[in-house]
Amino acid sequence: MTELVGKRIVVLCGGVGAAKLLQGLVKVVAPNSVTAIVNTGDDLSLHGLHICPDIDTVIYTLGNEINPDTGWGLRDEGWRAMDMLAMYGGIDWFRLGDRDIGTHLFRTQRLSEGATLSEVTREIAAKWGVGVNVIPMSNDPVRTIVTTVRGEDLNFQDYFVRLAHDVEIASIKFQGHETAHPAPELISEILEANIILVAPSNPLVSIAPILSIAGIRDALQKRRKDVIAISGIIGGKALKGPAGRLLNELGYEASAAAVAEIYKDIAGTFVIDDVDKHERMRIQELGLNCIITDTVMTNSTKAADLCRTTFEEIAG
Amino acid sequence: MTELVGKRIVVLCGGVGAAKLLQGLVKVVAPNSVTAIVNTGDDLSLHGLHICPDIDTVIYTLGNEINPDTGWGLRDEGWRAMDMLAMYGGIDWFRLGDRDIGTHLFRTQRLSEGATLSEVTREIAAKWGVGVNVIPMSNDPVRTIVTTVRGEDLNFQDYFVRLAHDVEIASIKFQGHETAHPAPELISEILEANIILVAPSNPLVSIAPILSIAGIRDALQKRRKDVIAISGIIGGKALKGPAGRLLNELGYEASAAAVAEIYKDIAGTFVIDDVDKHERMRIQELGLNCIITDTVMTNSTKAADLCRTTFEEIAG
Repeated sequence: MTELVGKRIVVLCGGVGAAKLLQGLVKVVAPNSVTAIVNTGDDLSLHGLHICPDIDTVIYTLGNEINPDTGWGLRDEGWRAMDMLAMYGGIDWFRLGDRDIGTHLFRTQRLSEGATLSEVTREIAAKWGVGVNVIPMSNDPVRTIVTTVRGEDLNFQDYFVRLAHDVEIASIKFQGHETAHPAPELISEILEANIILVAPSNPLVSIAPILSIAGIRDALQKRRKDVIAISGIIGGKALKGPAGRLLNELGYEASAAAVAEIYKDIAGTFVIDDVDKHERMRIQELGLNCIITDTVMTNSTKAADLCRTTFEEIAG
Repeated sequence: MTELVGKRIVVLCGGVGAAKLLQGLVKVVAPNSVTAIVNTGDDLSLHGLHICPDIDTVIYTLGNEINPDTGWGLRDEGWRAMDMLAMYGGIDWFRLGDRDIGTHLFRTQRLSEGATLSEVTREIAAKWGVGVNVIPMSNDPVRTIVTTVRGEDLNFQDYFVRLAHDVEIASIKFQGHETAHPAPELISEILEANIILVAPSNPLVSIAPILSIAGIRDALQKRRKDVIAISGIIGGKALKGPAGRLLNELGYEASAAAVAEIYKDIAGTFVIDDVDKHERMRIQELGLNCIITDTVMTNSTKAADLCRTTFEEIAG
């Protein structure tokens, strides 16, 4: 892997799947050579707090403080604030642990003092000893809104957590994306990176918000040959979350090839799992190189193997 | 005490001292005959949360959940959110327990949904089984600002908690009081009450903000003969807090008589402690009836005795 020394790697990230990939990636390359560009379309303002679920999942995971049972939130959590909120009859379906609340208090305070989300994110990541450069997709608010087949607009977390994504979706929009700017240095990171990975996150609600911001898709298209997307669909469904169902509801096939089609203008290479190897031809016909390997990241060793294999394939 | 049955009692309240008085009062009269009008000049917005220290102290005390060691906050608290905030280097001098945070999350959420502070306060009090009608002085923001002798403006909690009131004050103002309205029903409560008590709270920073709101002082003046103020100064100083020092810094004498002078246009009766009985003549010369009794509320029984004695004296 010596050819990776000194190279810069950018990763487009959602939450859990991206965090697992990053956990493997930092075993293969130096953390400070990696920039994670993280979706903030899922962010929410709740109880006055500014909450960034994907950013926190990435930072907590890289800081080895993620709750291993849930894949979100912190280890060794307390739930006293939530218990109190439940007693009051407040909104308690979005579970905020007491330690986790400390993060949201800090972020909200810093934002109210005029810090940008980029700055606060850097401060939080530094305190957890995260070497990866974690940056939000934008410092401007962009909110993923899903419209149900009954015409109701739902904030993403209403859909994802409150309704446990058990409702049929007709369309998705990214409110505010028209006027949002990419976070500072985001475009130059993409233009100057040696390799750009698209994490196996949900293409429609984790990666699409990032791509919706003016300039990001263009920058990726310029770098298309160095962009490697990893399929989040394995054997026709997502390992976690509603990606498979959402693809179907929005008129796509729930397959690795369908995801490849979504990414074909920004990615030159597409990584699929061994179980989907029969889709290789379809993917190549879309104009993408196709890497076939074990993409199931059961642990960080397997995530590191996925990264290593991918880099070897593109080098080779 | 039969003559108190069916009578309505209004109490103007700051935090700890007022809460102790109320705890005694509800042993003497039915809680639902009492309305507590509470100072919100000390409220603060911190980490995005809307915090009402005096309202919470009153409610937690009446709900028997106050932390007996501190006189503020809740019993059986956890400090995980605060520990996390400290780790981040955030603002942690205003201590918010994990359970207490639940209250602030609920309040902030309800306010963001369009509820008034009166409504949220009623909801919170109801959940703690508080029979007293607790109402904020206003649903509009009024903020107590102290100006130091060096000309620096400080938010009240900056002065009171962060600097532990260890700084010399030149003046006090109540930002927003010109445009703030009394909370709904506040004026009619004063006009229709049989007895109005002014709790032994700090006259300059707990009661003065209430009186600064248009209409409240006028209403009290109309009811002057039924208004009974209790001195928070005993033997030349406050039992707790900086009232004595503040009186001196702002050109008053730190004495019960000086407090009586501050209240003389709104109160017809002034209650002082036995140790201050030599001030009786001066107080009477201000045109106030003077009641002398033990005003040190070491526990709720003593607070009840203070209320009982006061009512007996005025009943004659």
